[in-house]
Amino acid sequence: MIVENYWKYFLVPLIVYCVTYVIYLWRNDKKKKIFGNSGRTERVEFDDSDLGEQDDLSPALPEDLAHIPLKPEILPTDVMIRHSREFYEKMNKRRSIRNFSSRSFPKEIIYNIIRTAGTAPSGAHTEPWTFIVVESMDMKEKIREIIEEEEEMNYKKRMGKTWTTDLKPLKTNWVKEYLTVAPYIILVFKQTHSFKSDGTKKIHYYNEQSLSIAVGFLLAAIHSAGLYSLTSTPLNCGPAIRSLLNRPSTEKLVFLLPVGYPAENCLVPDLHRKPLNEIIVEY
Amino acid sequence: MIVENYWKYFLVPLIVYCVTYVIYLWRNDKKKKIFGNSGRTERVEFDDSDLGEQDDLSPALPEDLAHIPLKPEILPTDVMIRHSREFYEKMNKRRSIRNFSSRSFPKEIIYNIIRTAGTAPSGAHTEPWTFIVVESMDMKEKIREIIEEEEEMNYKKRMGKTWTTDLKPLKTNWVKEYLTVAPYIILVFKQTHSFKSDGTKKIHYYNEQSLSIAVGFLLAAIHSAGLYSLTSTPLNCGPAIRSLLNRPSTEKLVFLLPVGYPAENCLVPDLHRKPLNEIIVEY
Repeated sequence: MIVENYWKYFLVPLIVYCVTYVIYLWRNDKKKKIFGNSGRTERVEFDDSDLGEQDDLSPALPEDLAHIPLKPEILPTDVMIRHSREFYEKMNKRRSIRNFSSRSFPKEIIYNIIRTAGTAPSGAHTEPWTFIVVESMDMKEKIREIIEEEEEMNYKKRMGKTWTTDLKPLKTNWVKEYLTVAPYIILVFKQTHSFKSDGTKKIHYYNEQSLSIAVGFLLAAIHSAGLYSLTSTPLNCGPAIRSLLNRPSTEKLVFLLPVGYPAENCLVPDLHRKPLNEIIVEY
Repeated sequence: MIVENYWKYFLVPLIVYCVTYVIYLWRNDKKKKIFGNSGRTERVEFDDSDLGEQDDLSPALPEDLAHIPLKPEILPTDVMIRHSREFYEKMNKRRSIRNFSSRSFPKEIIYNIIRTAGTAPSGAHTEPWTFIVVESMDMKEKIREIIEEEEEMNYKKRMGKTWTTDLKPLKTNWVKEYLTVAPYIILVFKQTHSFKSDGTKKIHYYNEQSLSIAVGFLLAAIHSAGLYSLTSTPLNCGPAIRSLLNRPSTEKLVFLLPVGYPAENCLVPDLHRKPLNEIIVEY
């Protein structure tokens, strides 16, 4: 009788617990097979898009994609050295600003800047990006309202003391005047996947890394045009802004960049960049 | 007696289970407070670095960081339009290649390229990047061995049919000859965190996005110098390569880029980029 009770009241929940735990371990192991050692300290970061199998097996690019000769333009070595130095010197003058002038500029420049971003490489050439350019004051005000509301909560509740303390020297807070002052705002959405012409899912490999590289191109283009920006990553605002801008659920907001001229008397923090020997290791 | 047994054999494990579950829910809720709706379809992607609280509250940058006047160089509008068009035209000529020449070039160009990457913006100016330049054939061979071994498993077992089918038109496989042919390989590690001078932890906000933007700058610099590259993200090779290169556990391999001249008769897939109207939306 005692043995019988023991079985019913103790072993049953224990067995249920063990089975659940084994299932959990097994599922985790399946993930590891794809993503490698998924321990936080070891794993290679990888976008967690759905990598599930599909029934159709037509590639996303044309199956008979031609491979054509590259026509490289080979420069003399001294010109290469000079170009690399000049490009560094130009890019080293770039500064992020938070204090914009309302002065506008021709939209053609915005078009060229976004065209440049669109030349970035992407996983299996999926080009997983949408650039939303906002010029309308009405829309800028709506975006500002969403962001300031979320940012106030971020600063006051979510980010914690370490984060807000780290931001203090940069003098930032949840008031984002530039959102309604800068002539243009570019919101950069990543596309986690899309659809092929036959309606099947097209997976966008490494979409977040590809998108961020494209934003690197975008920033270089903004700077090349003689304009200024601020690279921001609106925390927790994605769903509300996505819905405001009527973007599909396959897109997620990652970056927001105001673009324009600096305000008169614009100040920037007196930051310095690490010298080469602190960021390079040679073998 | 039955009630006593019931308590011992059934309720105790049940209570333990419930308490564990409540702790799990509570911890999850804490995460949500920081990262918002963490449902896969809605959350704003965010690097999962440890954002835990620390006892010290000194900011990572100097507390009294000066804010100094920006000295912008304002260009005439027609020059801005021209620069933006020229930069686009230059960047639009960039192509990734997989077939490199072994011809080398002065290392000064590599230095300028990495200096340029180091001018990228980063979350709270944490500059979370290390660029490993490999020129030694011995080290290149060791890296190639690790990568080809993992890639063979990726292609044959881990990536699945959808992924390998999508890669077919690009004619890639697990053999990476360029790893021992290109004169230089740059391995880009993100730093998830570092340490302040007083030994406390310095959190690197948005380190993966910052790093990828820096790789955008790196690619623009490689192209500006008249050189070629391939943006690769070695899957599952991170821990082995990190250990080979003796990098600390705070660093994770994200990108690997061979840099050099194209081989004679180098072919590239006949890819086209999306036109502006497919990547822009205006408000």
